[in-house]
Amino acid sequence: MRLRNKPWASEVIENHPEIVTPEPENLKGKWNEHFGNENPVYIEVGTGKGRFVTRMGEAYPDRNIIGMEKYDSVILSAVERLIETPQKNVKLIKDDVEKLTDIFAEGEISRVYINFTDPWPKNRHEKRRLTHKGFLEKYAEVLGKSGEIHMKTDNQALFEYSLESLSQFGFRLKNISLDLHNSGMEDNIMTEYEERYVDKGMRIYRLEAEKNPDL
Amino acid sequence: MRLRNKPWASEVIENHPEIVTPEPENLKGKWNEHFGNENPVYIEVGTGKGRFVTRMGEAYPDRNIIGMEKYDSVILSAVERLIETPQKNVKLIKDDVEKLTDIFAEGEISRVYINFTDPWPKNRHEKRRLTHKGFLEKYAEVLGKSGEIHMKTDNQALFEYSLESLSQFGFRLKNISLDLHNSGMEDNIMTEYEERYVDKGMRIYRLEAEKNPDL
Repeated sequence: MRLRNKPWASEVIENHPEIVTPEPENLKGKWNEHFGNENPVYIEVGTGKGRFVTRMGEAYPDRNIIGMEKYDSVILSAVERLIETPQKNVKLIKDDVEKLTDIFAEGEISRVYINFTDPWPKNRHEKRRLTHKGFLEKYAEVLGKSGEIHMKTDNQALFEYSLESLSQFGFRLKNISLDLHNSGMEDNIMTEYEERYVDKGMRIYRLEAEKNPDL
Repeated sequence: MRLRNKPWASEVIENHPEIVTPEPENLKGKWNEHFGNENPVYIEVGTGKGRFVTRMGEAYPDRNIIGMEKYDSVILSAVERLIETPQKNVKLIKDDVEKLTDIFAEGEISRVYINFTDPWPKNRHEKRRLTHKGFLEKYAEVLGKSGEIHMKTDNQALFEYSLESLSQFGFRLKNISLDLHNSGMEDNIMTEYEERYVDKGMRIYRLEAEKNPDL
């Protein structure tokens, strides 16, 4: 994603603590309390402009959705969406996915979404891919027993890597699609990127991974 | 594969016990003895006309290769290849893959190849797919501790199914390719089908699955 400097972004973010949770570490273990219900908590890592989380929030009012995004200038679009159409069950966190285990307690999350993230194609950047073992350890910690990871990407190499990485870590794969938009799948909520790729006739890859009960 | 009736096939097969092992059940636990060496034993299930096993045998003289094929009229081509160019390290078994555990002892096999097998697309035929749980149980039994399954197919749905089935069973996936012939892979031995599909510009899918040490 191209980053434009938007100096007013941090002000908008700070002025809307009901949307972008300030000091999210303080809510570790208390997210359900924060949402005021016992519904499952889903997070999207690298949430970008927030179309996915806001649509998810609309489609699933009985789920709590958290979008995590580290860049001010990117998360701003998501904040603006939520200012325009407030959604009680959608929150944003402006922070690095590295911090996941500082922000969420063991088993506090039911599902992690990874949508169209940076493929980091160079071998020396492998650790930055959001399905690298280092991140999977964090997801496995915050996910509950029947927790799941749902991933979509247009990037073949990242998808191959992710299948292997999840499998080697001990996640169990299900509902794999190697061409999502020609698979008759229903209930697919598209991200901004996805719509653009599909329009170009590109394949979208998708997987679900269950936490192995032995982990 | 289209089956043509070839009444002379069974005679050719019977006349070449050095190629098509008669009563293979009697060799259960004794395949290395039968080959006269301690080299690893690889099998290809549904070996078809035998191009893959004969090329494998040539490329890897320090491996014992067994092709398993149930149809007389199909295995005949493989037998003819081996009559023309005898290969000490290649044997054929004319039998059903169902019989695998009657023919091989626990841990006797190092690798199972599944190449371009029938996708059985209808749900009610799921059990016939060679990556169905029922077959995976058999492979897991005859494979040794670090045993592997290597699979190639042009069929997207079969590949999706196989990734899930292997993962759910507890195999660990590695070296996945979603477009083998555009992946820079070396040492790929092509089957008859594969060559035809590649010529048509179709994608070839490939995976390797390791037996989970906990199984």
